[in-house]
Amino acid sequence: MKPIIECCFSPSLLSLYDLKSKIVIVIDVFRATSTIASVLDKGALKVIPVDDVTRAIQLGTEIPESITAGERNGQIVEGLQHGNSPTEYTTEMIQNKTLILTTTNGTRLLHQCKDADEILTASFLNLSATADYLIRQNKPVLLACASWKDRFNLEDSIFAGAIYKKIKNHFITQCDSTLASEILYEQASKDLIGFIKNCSHYHRLSQYGLQGDLEYCMQMDRHNHVNKFSTQAITLWNE
Amino acid sequence: MKPIIECCFSPSLLSLYDLKSKIVIVIDVFRATSTIASVLDKGALKVIPVDDVTRAIQLGTEIPESITAGERNGQIVEGLQHGNSPTEYTTEMIQNKTLILTTTNGTRLLHQCKDADEILTASFLNLSATADYLIRQNKPVLLACASWKDRFNLEDSIFAGAIYKKIKNHFITQCDSTLASEILYEQASKDLIGFIKNCSHYHRLSQYGLQGDLEYCMQMDRHNHVNKFSTQAITLWNE
Repeated sequence: MKPIIECCFSPSLLSLYDLKSKIVIVIDVFRATSTIASVLDKGALKVIPVDDVTRAIQLGTEIPESITAGERNGQIVEGLQHGNSPTEYTTEMIQNKTLILTTTNGTRLLHQCKDADEILTASFLNLSATADYLIRQNKPVLLACASWKDRFNLEDSIFAGAIYKKIKNHFITQCDSTLASEILYEQASKDLIGFIKNCSHYHRLSQYGLQGDLEYCMQMDRHNHVNKFSTQAITLWNE
Repeated sequence: MKPIIECCFSPSLLSLYDLKSKIVIVIDVFRATSTIASVLDKGALKVIPVDDVTRAIQLGTEIPESITAGERNGQIVEGLQHGNSPTEYTTEMIQNKTLILTTTNGTRLLHQCKDADEILTASFLNLSATADYLIRQNKPVLLACASWKDRFNLEDSIFAGAIYKKIKNHFITQCDSTLASEILYEQASKDLIGFIKNCSHYHRLSQYGLQGDLEYCMQMDRHNHVNKFSTQAITLWNE
């Protein structure tokens, strides 16, 4: 019997799903889960996702070799050292450091998933590595989109579709969100950058000159690693 | 300046939208808003949507010339005279009668929309009549999907896309749900019946032998009238 796969389009709908015994994939393509993949690839020790800015600043004073980072409404927050851009970190800056990250949508969702058996973060940057891991694990999966302030968004949904398309032969689904995500991805994949320029979040972030970030986040399989959230931190995961 | 149009995929997300000054289109294709269009077309005086079964039964004893109807989890409920099928009523049965209707998803959503300026119910059966009305009114619109127990569903979403496609030149949107609904409808419209057979709700209702109902609900523009919810009842609306 193949395990089931489902998709949840908004953190506000998460309570409708049973997370127990499941692998939850937390998806926040613009930009939290892309930034996480990027800094771990550059040698960061771990990423600690934090709900609020004050707590992030406090942790930054307590944890040695740490960097505080984050955004609210897409913009850098006063008191944090960095924003939420996957392109702003060099290896020299981040290697062996702990990134303390707080964002509008993604970090909150991570904490909502605590009942899951395993929690991964994923983005286009590590799509295939994540998909291959899910096939190997052979456990039920929930694709959890961070959305934008609880409203459905296209970038997270098409990523859910991208991952579903890669692994669908190994799973069963009777979940309309999952089927919809695949249709949306099929349409988007004809011209991924062109498609993403119609998304509401692209318009929002473009106002801050972040088009480069958004195109960076749409790169497929730049990194060949799985990112796992466990004991309060996200790290590279080696089986 | 064109008015805005937005789409909400689940009653659980409705609180994210400001309903004031808006026309809300309540969409429950399988089957409440299809049944409503059908019985009004056959001469029903009005449809009173009711949240719970006990209240429906009580109103049935109070209102002369009324019929109680409804379902829970897709099945007829004990104590109600009829189910929620758009095909079970003949003109002789329903003409000049009041239908008291309680359903799993649709009737609850109607009551959630009370802050709206106007509330319409709509389905494929009266798609064009509803779309034309919205163009004439020239007011902001929210397409509100009843969903299935708060989970995203395909049949309501593709109907939202069908209505958006008809009126989009008269509105502006920066709502990803609306854009997604159009993509889903474009895909579905290549083979509407074939598409709907993949939906989770089709599988659910097929178990009860309701395939005929579902295909009936996919008929485009069978009825040329607008259905409006006002002062606790839905009636044919004549401007």
